Amino acid sequence: MPMSSTRGRDVDEYLRLAGTQKLTITYVIETHRQEDFVLGSSELARITGARIVNGAHEGFGHGDIRLKDREELSFGGLRLRALHTPGHTPESLCYALYIPDSPERAWGVFTGDALFIGETGRTDLPDPGKTGENAGRLYDAVHEKLLPLGDQALLYPAHGSGTVCGGNVADRDESTLGLERLYNPVFTKTREEFMAAKVKERLPRPPYFAVMEKLNSAGSIALARRPEEITVLQPEAFSREMGRGIVIDTRSPEAFSGGHIPNALSIWATGLPVFGGWVAGPDTPVYLLLESPGALDEAVLALARIGVDGVQGILAGGFEAWRDAGLPIETSGTIAPRELEARLDQFRVIDVREDSELEEGHIPNAAHLYVGYLDRHLGRITPPLDKSRPIAVTCSVGHRASLAVSLLQRQGFPRVENLLGGMTAWSALALSRETTPDYPVTTTDVEGPRQ
Amino acid sequence: MPMSSTRGRDVDEYLRLAGTQKLTITYVIETHRQEDFVLGSSELARITGARIVNGAHEGFGHGDIRLKDREELSFGGLRLRALHTPGHTPESLCYALYIPDSPERAWGVFTGDALFIGETGRTDLPDPGKTGENAGRLYDAVHEKLLPLGDQALLYPAHGSGTVCGGNVADRDESTLGLERLYNPVFTKTREEFMAAKVKERLPRPPYFAVMEKLNSAGSIALARRPEEITVLQPEAFSREMGRGIVIDTRSPEAFSGGHIPNALSIWATGLPVFGGWVAGPDTPVYLLLESPGALDEAVLALARIGVDGVQGILAGGFEAWRDAGLPIETSGTIAPRELEARLDQFRVIDVREDSELEEGHIPNAAHLYVGYLDRHLGRITPPLDKSRPIAVTCSVGHRASLAVSLLQRQGFPRVENLLGGMTAWSALALSRETTPDYPVTTTDVEGPRQ
Amino acid sequence: MPMSSTRGRDVDEYLRLAGTQKLTITYVIETHRQEDFVLGSSELARITGARIVNGAHEGFGHGDIRLKDREELSFGGLRLRALHTPGHTPESLCYALYIPDSPERAWGVFTGDALFIGETGRTDLPDPGKTGENAGRLYDAVHEKLLPLGDQALLYPAHGSGTVCGGNVADRDESTLGLERLYNPVFTKTREEFMAAKVKERLPRPPYFAVMEKLNSAGSIALARRPEEITVLQPEAFSREMGRGIVIDTRSPEAFSGGHIPNALSIWATGLPVFGGWVAGPDTPVYLLLESPGALDEAVLALARIGVDGVQGILAGGFEAWRDAGLPIETSGTIAPRELEARLDQFRVIDVREDSELEEGHIPNAAHLYVGYLDRHLGRITPPLDKSRPIAVTCSVGHRASLAVSLLQRQGFPRVENLLGGMTAWSALALSRETTPDYPVTTTDVEGPRQ
Amino acid sequence: MPMSSTRGRDVDEYLRLAGTQKLTITYVIETHRQEDFVLGSSELARITGARIVNGAHEGFGHGDIRLKDREELSFGGLRLRALHTPGHTPESLCYALYIPDSPERAWGVFTGDALFIGETGRTDLPDPGKTGENAGRLYDAVHEKLLPLGDQALLYPAHGSGTVCGGNVADRDESTLGLERLYNPVFTKTREEFMAAKVKERLPRPPYFAVMEKLNSAGSIALARRPEEITVLQPEAFSREMGRGIVIDTRSPEAFSGGHIPNALSIWATGLPVFGGWVAGPDTPVYLLLESPGALDEAVLALARIGVDGVQGILAGGFEAWRDAGLPIETSGTIAPRELEARLDQFRVIDVREDSELEEGHIPNAAHLYVGYLDRHLGRITPPLDKSRPIAVTCSVGHRASLAVSLLQRQGFPRVENLLGGMTAWSALALSRETTPDYPVTTTDVEGPRQ
Repeated sequence: MPMSSTRGRDVDEYLRLAGTQKLTITYVIETHRQEDFVLGSSELARITGARIVNGAHEGFGHGDIRLKDREELSFGGLRLRALHTPGHTPESLCYALYIPDSPERAWGVFTGDALFIGETGRTDLPDPGKTGENAGRLYDAVHEKLLPLGDQALLYPAHGSGTVCGGNVADRDESTLGLERLYNPVFTKTREEFMAAKVKERLPRPPYFAVMEKLNSAGSIALARRPEEITVLQPEAFSREMGRGIVIDTRSPEAFSGGHIPNALSIWATGLPVFGGWVAGPDTPVYLLLESPGALDEAVLALARIGVDGVQGILAGGFEAWRDAGLPIETSGTIAPRELEARLDQFRVIDVREDSELEEGHIPNAAHLYVGYLDRHLGRITPPLDKSRPIAVTCSVGHRASLAVSLLQRQGFPRVENLLGGMTAWSALALSRETTPDYPVTTTDVEGPRQ
Repeated sequence: MPMSSTRGRDVDEYLRLAGTQKLTITYVIETHRQEDFVLGSSELARITGARIVNGAHEGFGHGDIRLKDREELSFGGLRLRALHTPGHTPESLCYALYIPDSPERAWGVFTGDALFIGETGRTDLPDPGKTGENAGRLYDAVHEKLLPLGDQALLYPAHGSGTVCGGNVADRDESTLGLERLYNPVFTKTREEFMAAKVKERLPRPPYFAVMEKLNSAGSIALARRPEEITVLQPEAFSREMGRGIVIDTRSPEAFSGGHIPNALSIWATGLPVFGGWVAGPDTPVYLLLESPGALDEAVLALARIGVDGVQGILAGGFEAWRDAGLPIETSGTIAPRELEARLDQFRVIDVREDSELEEGHIPNAAHLYVGYLDRHLGRITPPLDKSRPIAVTCSVGHRASLAVSLLQRQGFPRVENLLGGMTAWSALALSRETTPDYPVTTTDVEGPRQ
Repeated sequence: MPMSSTRGRDVDEYLRLAGTQKLTITYVIETHRQEDFVLGSSELARITGARIVNGAHEGFGHGDIRLKDREELSFGGLRLRALHTPGHTPESLCYALYIPDSPERAWGVFTGDALFIGETGRTDLPDPGKTGENAGRLYDAVHEKLLPLGDQALLYPAHGSGTVCGGNVADRDESTLGLERLYNPVFTKTREEFMAAKVKERLPRPPYFAVMEKLNSAGSIALARRPEEITVLQPEAFSREMGRGIVIDTRSPEAFSGGHIPNALSIWATGLPVFGGWVAGPDTPVYLLLESPGALDEAVLALARIGVDGVQGILAGGFEAWRDAGLPIETSGTIAPRELEARLDQFRVIDVREDSELEEGHIPNAAHLYVGYLDRHLGRITPPLDKSRPIAVTCSVGHRASLAVSLLQRQGFPRVENLLGGMTAWSALALSRETTPDYPVTTTDVEGPRQ
Repeated sequence: MPMSSTRGRDVDEYLRLAGTQKLTITYVIETHRQEDFVLGSSELARITGARIVNGAHEGFGHGDIRLKDREELSFGGLRLRALHTPGHTPESLCYALYIPDSPERAWGVFTGDALFIGETGRTDLPDPGKTGENAGRLYDAVHEKLLPLGDQALLYPAHGSGTVCGGNVADRDESTLGLERLYNPVFTKTREEFMAAKVKERLPRPPYFAVMEKLNSAGSIALARRPEEITVLQPEAFSREMGRGIVIDTRSPEAFSGGHIPNALSIWATGLPVFGGWVAGPDTPVYLLLESPGALDEAVLALARIGVDGVQGILAGGFEAWRDAGLPIETSGTIAPRELEARLDQFRVIDVREDSELEEGHIPNAAHLYVGYLDRHLGRITPPLDKSRPIAVTCSVGHRASLAVSLLQRQGFPRVENLLGGMTAWSALALSRETTPDYPVTTTDVEGPRQ
């Protein structure tokens, strides 16, 4: 089973899989330096004695075997051919796989962050000023290197739907080059259209990207602590210690609304690998409140993968224990779509989605600021928010809005409500929307990482 | 490993355990007809060919082998001696176990609902008018039949903490007769004190008790449907069908508060084996909203064990799917203890705990009605509730209060808030309490089962 | 995730998957009547209320919706187009799937038993005399109906490597039509070559095929017993009862050799879905000796899927318990390749592989009889076997040979040895082989099912 | 749930349990330096910040809190009282636990290696010459410190059945002081009888005991490698590397007999925590052949717990892969009890059980040498073994005999057979036995650890 994964530092899954599949790991093969998670290559190589394989590019050179464009590696009767496909990053490689049954035409291709299902990798990362130029390079690489592999080739990209490395990856796991040719913009657009679209695309650049780049260029680092080593803190101890850092509450938006620890930030469990990096740096002390103890591993690893290594403890017994101990509790509001529409004049509405998501319309008069910037750039909202007026926050379904609610509440806004179901429910009910063609850009124009 | 369990109808666990422990099941041994769950004896006997063993009492006579008092059964080198210990029910048996290393003195004793850890079985079930008389019989049986077995005997009761078959079972799993002798009221009180205490004890009598008694006296019935056979309903379909019955929402009180399906009843997952039977009869169509799909099995089996066989479907995708579909949502309130105390004059407070729990004090001026009667006997609260005034509901921690909130909301009360952490948090904060010596009894004085 | 599976009667996995994936099962879609496992369609439809979809062919007509060639079914934004592809069976359908991103060209195709990875379905089943004719029909259907779908289409066949429904399926899970076009014989051969190859192909026809056909044509039947309902028999009881039927021992060939129950048949666990049907009919009482209790489910379900419903019990504690009870034990021999070569003149060698496997060569002077016929057609071996001379049995690795050893031992041959590693090890060591061009056919020329 | 466990270095289970039980680990409480596994205290304390609690004895002094006899520790409403109970080792402590319901009389007692179910700790370890004297000290401690705790007290010893720290621990998990008083030799014998019995008791002293003592006296060490970090070796690589150390084959005795790697040692999986330490020292390179990849964790941890840290790799694909690669294979024999009895004159029989096990009788004319000494003290068997005569080896059921077979085979004996079912089967069949009153002692009279 081909597996191209973004698991990164917690290499146990690779080790386990090799064990159950009776495989010896002999090569750790990298497509490019990743920006969205810490690589686990060195750790995996250290444990297994495998050799690290990557490209010949000078910017990413810690590999034991460095393949040039079209150079090949053979193992187990298979041939893997490196294809240099710059654009997302300068050193990006794809790898075409040839099997004995089909030695001439590729069986499949590992496309890294060059080609996703329905999308290509973003091209703004190396230098926002060269987004278009890099888009052109990516377009050329895909057409010159990948397209000739043939329609039959199976596609194994490095990310699926939800990645921050591409704008609009399809929510499917399987594809072929021939399928991509039918609908992927890199094939349906001209080179000029493609470049223009990439320039116009405004994707958030999470602050941890810069950290990842630095770490990964120097080779990877081992996991700081395994999840089971995280301290279990009883409510009183949690309460005493949490002031040293931030509390992240991974329960559902509704549960957060019904009661939460004051100043806790609401990030749903599967949002941690992205939004954990917007609110915490590598060393920020993090205190976790989880839905259940079983959620610990994934939460800690999700943060570790993006370099957030400072998890200090989890709350023993979760919110129930906190609540029963009589410790301080805050609530926040939720509001259903029809109710908000009926009372729209009473609310200030803030839409915290990405810029591109607003193209399909937004709630009339909604202000816009991407959730990632809400904490530091609240002043961009005009007219400024007024603490005496209720605020309704929306995103696509209510998850990012819940983080926004928690950020605003922490900033002292007394009445903030989460639009349940977000714009998905709003649209399903066909409530009134408007479109603002030239919304002020809020997603990508912030320079560096969080200080 | 001795196992005396209340698993009942879903006999798979017995079968699995026998398989992994390499045991052939040859006897299914019953202590008494149970009132709080449907027996699985007949089903287990049908599958395994085992023989059902119980007592010689005429009121419970479907066994293949019917043991008289002090009669013995031998198997695998062990001897099991039946001890007739009436009081909880007239036919109750305990079973003392003798092992080869100790053929004269009991190694342990399976005490059914006669003797629990720190408690005895309630004695009001056969006839509330004979509670004291039956308490005397139980006292005699425990002293004459169990006590002589000796301090060394390990205790294996049929229930642990949380059972509805005894008032105040300790939250520990292991004990001995010698330990019970030190603190169990049946040993620390005189016969007269014990009888008086049992008469004074006012335990709720869930409506499903009568159903269980009837079913179990006639032998058990097989599981109506296995959990995986329950239909998965998409939100729109769930919405269309749910009107035929009731919706039970097993999420946390906070999540329920932050958003729920209109008229849904809030019962936390581990509360289903008791409170499911207060709100649903054997054939009530039940629609389930679960925290996660993984909770399905336990929820369906919990209901089945108390004879609630009408589960019609689960909501695909849980509340998140409902919310994102833009379907109707209600919210309810939560309130923290200090906030309630500060605003106590604005609220009408209802305490929905059992009578006995109020002895340790309640919130000043709180009205009292056990949660089980809230739906049908709301009129008992004096002065009557007023829809224009906010209501705060409390129990021990907030679970039963959440059910109460949902019941009151369904009755049309517009503003009902759940005291988070309940009296546990209230006490932890040492907020003001009062005690009402002769609170009107609300828990046990209702006659029959729900119609 | 597309899933085309041969799970059949034990529909729980479909139900579980639907639950965790939040899916309502609305259609049960069949490609053709299967011969190698009992369908679970009716059972799944009964539980879920789903409708059964299949083709318009008169020979397979229990569906609720019967699609004509090129007729479509739409659900969840997808379109599924039926393609009549006879050849394997007259009614065989494939289904091309179209997604919104690619409404004109197929995203993938469910190919049933028409097209496998690297292979096509066998064409001898409906009528051995029309194998070539049906191969021609299959060739035409694949070329006319599937090929035009395009290279890009993902392939989802009903079977993978190891199936008895096709000769030489590749040991990979993923493919595309474009890949098949490169190496699949149906594309690399001419129509005439393809027909000739199919005629020459001599695949075993297990006796249970006829049973499956009858059952499946009439709609499916529910599982007779769930695995956990199988009786656990202590060694003495197992010993008493096993004479009523057959004992199947699923341990490894080495363990079987080192000690086994007299007359037990050796079938490795993953061989049960095929070889269980060679040694047991629908009602044969079967007694199982498993490697561990955890293997029970899969063993019982594997047999149930091919209609073997007579499993009566498993041996509690496995062979260890049997051995420690001092019950009768037999051993059989194993021999390593180099040792056999050195002593080849002392042994009579029997090769029990399929006819086609012998084309790559066999041990010099080996007799050949397919393992499935060893029990009933031993007389075909010439010169006849001699009980005074040691026998060495071989297959590809030693699994089927272990069954052969057990069958021969049951027939009274006193010294039978299993060539460990079989022809795989023999070839790896480059020991001497010979090829017999016109080996007598032994695999397919037996008419009906086992009586 | 009280848990007194010998898990030792792999502290993950403690961490996991604390997490799921919502507990903060604040104390790591030790009863005594252990000889039979490496302590994990320091590692657990390092991860959790917990403090290590042990006794005031100078010989075992790495604790943060060192309790004197009858000194107490309080936490979570519980009181734990240290009781100095020397005899097994000089510093041994027991801990009596008092709960609020029973503040005067012990609820239970953690007895370390002082008192087991049906047995006491061996007293020969500190100094074989003082076995009787230490037995007297242990007798006194049990009678003076434990007995007064009362019959009601639950018993939580450090080991169960199978431990090497006591001779004859009962195969049950639960007991009370009152039960022990009925059958435990420390209570049923007089002090003199007890001392005499201990002196006569001849328990093996595995070579790793000395290593453990040294390690544990200095505080514990962390796990060298996690199981998933063990290298997966393909058959050829395994074959090349295994010569650097020893191969341990954990399959069943029957499977070992049917085929194994030349010179591999046969140790069944649950025998590793004892017999692994007889054949491998701390740094011996160990190559593992497992029944299945899933057995890896337990095998590696079992060895690590007794300080065997040199596991170098596991064989990918197990014996099946080895066999199919055509690599060298040896077989060994098995023999059923009745067959051996019938041919007793042809065999030399060796009984490899412990001295004490021979008291119940042995096969006529059997020689005796404990399996642990078979490799180094074979010369003690008189008359010496003769390579031209077949050898039958027996133990209780065939596991230790399988190790003995492999050791003898490695020493060049060409025909060695394992008596299947061992003396258990032999006795079950009532075959002829004899008793040799003064068998030469072979189990305990060897001085130091393996060099």
